[in-house]
Amino acid sequence: MSRFRVAVHIVPRKGLLDPQGKAVADALHALGFSAVADARVGRHVVLDVDAASSDGALASVRTMCDKLLANPVTEDYEIAGVDAA
Amino acid sequence: MSRFRVAVHIVPRKGLLDPQGKAVADALHALGFSAVADARVGRHVVLDVDAASSDGALASVRTMCDKLLANPVTEDYEIAGVDAA
Repeated sequence: MSRFRVAVHIVPRKGLLDPQGKAVADALHALGFSAVADARVGRHVVLDVDAASSDGALASVRTMCDKLLANPVTEDYEIAGVDAA
Repeated sequence: MSRFRVAVHIVPRKGLLDPQGKAVADALHALGFSAVADARVGRHVVLDVDAASSDGALASVRTMCDKLLANPVTEDYEIAGVDAA
């Protein structure tokens, strides 16, 4: 068993309203950052997982995302990276 | 002027309590994912920025993080990537 550090991005599904992103964009405009055309805000989750291989760690993190971490109706997730921890 | 998509990770500073990460780890344990040793939860912000160059886009996003996006006392940020949007 080794320990792997898996990073996951969980983002609002494209085309769905992202109120937090809109709030960030509006706040940046109010501060004078008019070059910002769009902002989207998601979650960056880093998990330390014990597994026999990096593929095993990846598979279990995918299951965690499906079961708990990402809302399957409103969010998409992608595995951003797997490293030995 | 071109448009660049800049991704930023904003994470709780190392050593500080991360209650959201602890809640995620506890929930994963309760669901039977005992292989999870640690979880940390941050924000994944994607900004579309108009700038003359990718360096210019990066510099303005760093300023936005310093001024608004990241809490300088409790959070660290890192630029995860810059692409032409």
